[in-house]
Amino acid sequence: MPILRIEMHPGKTLEQKRELASGITRVFVETLACPPEVVEIVFNEIEKDAWAVGGKLKSDT
Amino acid sequence: MPILRIEMHPGKTLEQKRELASGITRVFVETLACPPEVVEIVFNEIEKDAWAVGGKLKSDT
Amino acid sequence: MPILRIEMHPGKTLEQKRELASGITRVFVETLACPPEVVEIVFNEIEKDAWAVGGKLKSDT
Amino acid sequence: MPILRIEMHPGKTLEQKRELASGITRVFVETLACPPEVVEIVFNEIEKDAWAVGGKLKSDT
Amino acid sequence: MPILRIEMHPGKTLEQKRELASGITRVFVETLACPPEVVEIVFNEIEKDAWAVGGKLKSDT
Amino acid sequence: MPILRIEMHPGKTLEQKRELASGITRVFVETLACPPEVVEIVFNEIEKDAWAVGGKLKSDT
Repeated sequence: MPILRIEMHPGKTLEQKRELASGITRVFVETLACPPEVVEIVFNEIEKDAWAVGGKLKSDT
Repeated sequence: MPILRIEMHPGKTLEQKRELASGITRVFVETLACPPEVVEIVFNEIEKDAWAVGGKLKSDT
Repeated sequence: MPILRIEMHPGKTLEQKRELASGITRVFVETLACPPEVVEIVFNEIEKDAWAVGGKLKSDT
Repeated sequence: MPILRIEMHPGKTLEQKRELASGITRVFVETLACPPEVVEIVFNEIEKDAWAVGGKLKSDT
Repeated sequence: MPILRIEMHPGKTLEQKRELASGITRVFVETLACPPEVVEIVFNEIEKDAWAVGGKLKSDT
Repeated sequence: MPILRIEMHPGKTLEQKRELASGITRVFVETLACPPEVVEIVFNEIEKDAWAVGGKLKSDT
């Protein structure tokens, strides 16, 4: 049932994405007592020149 | 008026995206009696190593 | 596999949402030859005072 | 840096949302070695009559 | 052409939403030399108990 | 506090993205009297063959 969309910078290894996916899913299973199959996660990689905080692109800071 | 955001795996042909866009728009026009121009659709292609179900990346299953 | 997020104004009947869900799902099944169970749709209702086009809230036009 | 958007059905207690937020954040901190303050999570509650799988509203199944 | 989705806490007045919509649209018109009608903005209000930073709900801090 | 997600066509220069980020942030600061650091903006570039209006891909019109 839960759908997660995660925006983060690129550069994560496949192993880190595996750990994020399994770790986050386990948090849902433990907290909501739901089966793991209902947890769906989509990663969206955003470059530093496409992300701004405080009015400045991260690639400029 | 309706805005649709569609996440799906890459690999669809241009012709499939055309059929999805025209078919989905027709469903809105027929159901809500709205003009087709108000239906806006954005496709977002997500690789299999960026999509997880049940705590596992789809590229691992 | 496809996840659809649909933003539209409130006021649709349950029957209209049923028709949108079944009609959109059928378009995916026919175009991509996927089973219907993989199509997931989330409706997000947005009031007219929370939606702007051309710099004006829809509730003001 | 990561922003998470989580769609799930309403009905979670405040305590469950607290555990989800702290547990998910810990997964990021442990996997990416980032400080907890950079993890931002937004919960979006979606009613069963606004969520469809397989062409059917969840409120109908 | 641009679609903006804005998540923020509730409690803004209608006048503030009007100013955000017209001000943001003007920034696009001036920067991209596009007509104002192509700028579409959707506001999504998120309660403090549905928004977490650093692993803590904002309603707890 | 506000998070903005902006979908637009690719092809903007870095300088245009800088102006959009700083201009939009200033609108929030002036309208809501918030500090600039709380405004977070993510740009999402969508190709013309992944964006449809009126049932037609923009790359076909």
